[in-house]
Amino acid sequence: MPGIIKERLFTPGPTPLLLEAQLRALTMTLHHRTDAFRALMRETLDHLRYYFNTKNDVIMFASSGTGAMEGAVSNLLSPGDRALIGTAGKFGERWVQLTKAYGIESVVVEAPYGHPVPIAEMKKHLESSGPFRAVFIQATESSTGVRNDVEALGRAVSALPDCCFVVDAITGLGTTDLQPDDWGIDILIGGSQKATMIPPGLAFASISDKAARAMEKSKLPRYYFDYLKERKSLAKGESSYTPATSLVVCLHDSLDYIKKLGRENLIANAALLAEATREAARALGLTNFAVSSPANAVTSINAPAGIESTKVVKEMRSRFGAILTDGQGSMKGQMFRIAHLGYYDFLDLLAILGALEISLQKVGHKCELGSGVRAAQNVYLRHSS
Amino acid sequence: MPGIIKERLFTPGPTPLLLEAQLRALTMTLHHRTDAFRALMRETLDHLRYYFNTKNDVIMFASSGTGAMEGAVSNLLSPGDRALIGTAGKFGERWVQLTKAYGIESVVVEAPYGHPVPIAEMKKHLESSGPFRAVFIQATESSTGVRNDVEALGRAVSALPDCCFVVDAITGLGTTDLQPDDWGIDILIGGSQKATMIPPGLAFASISDKAARAMEKSKLPRYYFDYLKERKSLAKGESSYTPATSLVVCLHDSLDYIKKLGRENLIANAALLAEATREAARALGLTNFAVSSPANAVTSINAPAGIESTKVVKEMRSRFGAILTDGQGSMKGQMFRIAHLGYYDFLDLLAILGALEISLQKVGHKCELGSGVRAAQNVYLRHSS
Repeated sequence: MPGIIKERLFTPGPTPLLLEAQLRALTMTLHHRTDAFRALMRETLDHLRYYFNTKNDVIMFASSGTGAMEGAVSNLLSPGDRALIGTAGKFGERWVQLTKAYGIESVVVEAPYGHPVPIAEMKKHLESSGPFRAVFIQATESSTGVRNDVEALGRAVSALPDCCFVVDAITGLGTTDLQPDDWGIDILIGGSQKATMIPPGLAFASISDKAARAMEKSKLPRYYFDYLKERKSLAKGESSYTPATSLVVCLHDSLDYIKKLGRENLIANAALLAEATREAARALGLTNFAVSSPANAVTSINAPAGIESTKVVKEMRSRFGAILTDGQGSMKGQMFRIAHLGYYDFLDLLAILGALEISLQKVGHKCELGSGVRAAQNVYLRHSS
Repeated sequence: MPGIIKERLFTPGPTPLLLEAQLRALTMTLHHRTDAFRALMRETLDHLRYYFNTKNDVIMFASSGTGAMEGAVSNLLSPGDRALIGTAGKFGERWVQLTKAYGIESVVVEAPYGHPVPIAEMKKHLESSGPFRAVFIQATESSTGVRNDVEALGRAVSALPDCCFVVDAITGLGTTDLQPDDWGIDILIGGSQKATMIPPGLAFASISDKAARAMEKSKLPRYYFDYLKERKSLAKGESSYTPATSLVVCLHDSLDYIKKLGRENLIANAALLAEATREAARALGLTNFAVSSPANAVTSINAPAGIESTKVVKEMRSRFGAILTDGQGSMKGQMFRIAHLGYYDFLDLLAILGALEISLQKVGHKCELGSGVRAAQNVYLRHSS
């Protein structure tokens, strides 16, 4: 039955776009060495400070989030420095690869997929295996759908005067309560194609005073991702190299939207959708991949017994145009993920759950039609007046 | 709980827009006295012929659908002519007002709201109360959600050499199987803000040879809505007066999309959504306003017992940004309507039904959460492989 099928992204990046912000980029004169653009850039950086919930400066690069992650390594450290890494999945493993690429020795605390990084073990290493110049972790690990306790870890790191705390919050920002200044997060990293509702192409990073002091002393090679150079340029409203102008305009306007909505409400929105999705999965006889501490950014759901998750993902795409993600790497076929990052509302969730129920039946998983939707509706009713 | 709320139209016009078609109008040079625009206009008229399922010429006006309805009256008739009108609701009543405005005496066959026009009675009038120069009716009456049997009526009128058959298919086109050439429909009328997925501002009308002959003899006053003048101009790719250029470009591209999808599939899509909505309403303990012959264009649902439909409409709008329509005129408060005109897919329906269940509970109507969604899912499964 070939009917109308609208493609819908439920992936943890890229995410659904805020059309109003996209359209703005079509109507604005976009030369970056103009007063108008400098003013817009400065306002955007202020917006980012609000979005990051920090008093620190936030810089941006024309790059994917990984660029800012690389910059955190190359700007903070020097040859011979040691790092402590907490990893709970594919993105945690990126910290391991990045430090290795720069010849930095690291101690890695690894959580099994589906579990958060054991913070107690991280603390023990801080006390007994140091000194470390930097600690790296994710706020939310989007390959497994797990949230790490960055508050507890941050408070421990901030007691160490010569060690910086770096948090990849690429999917954590806008989905998770983060208090970088109180928790001692020295570098907080974000990306544009996530809860900011715009396309890929921009990376963000906040810089604490402690981080800036460390950068002045650090000796690893860097050029494009030079944090302090960029901070100095951006203070004048100009990036060191050509900025991705259309994305900056989009970002400015999407952050306008987010300011109006309220950062807390954006986070509460993701939290509601995530909770409703977890409850729906249970009602449909499925289990959540996150054993504990599930993230609001993305919900990971184990494949139905005896059925590859890849089949569910394919059914959703071909039948309904709904794009979910399969597990990454060794998790492929084992689980699938539904994202709640940014521009989703409750009707988006009702639609995806109703489609999921049909797809599960089609791949041979027995479940009661409407029961996942009902579980989500009950979560909505618990939280609304 | 203030979260993200996306506004969604579920009204029988305007309808959700096909963004791709909108964007085209931004990028095209839009002067109407150019070869490029003439070529585009001619292609659009060809597309309209496909969309109308007719070999007759189709003309367009920069106006709402009512303009083309007025034109049908003023182009076909002369002072002293009589007309037969079948009306089943607010839009049928417009034929009565239009003929009255031009001093045309008419015989009106009126169905109670919720019922289709009794065709047998229309036929009896054709046989015994004539002569009539024209017969007017709606393919689907969107104020009540009812479909009229235009085939049976058309076959009867086509036997009369001096009587033309005029069908307002403003919400019928793209939602209902119509075979104007076989059924003897002399003028078929459409509007842009319906299943063509573009904004309001264009009206369409097909003209049979029989209608053209009648127009040559007719003596009612007309100027802007002169059908034959417009047909002559448009044959050269130019409208008589300034065309609504951006809408023509949108229409061209939306009809491209519809041709690729297939007219039959567009209609089947609306039929599926309408059937699923009716079943969902029943599962939720509600009754359909259309007593028989429900339209695919829009489903009208009676208010829950003891509760004004206005409350349901308000709840849907304030809580979920979902815009439904209340009953019109004397039907206000008595029923509400969910449209299936054009650019809707099954996920749109799942979303609206899930939201409706919550809204019904909130206004005090007892229903099982998820049960309307399940009824719709079962309709989907019956029709899909």
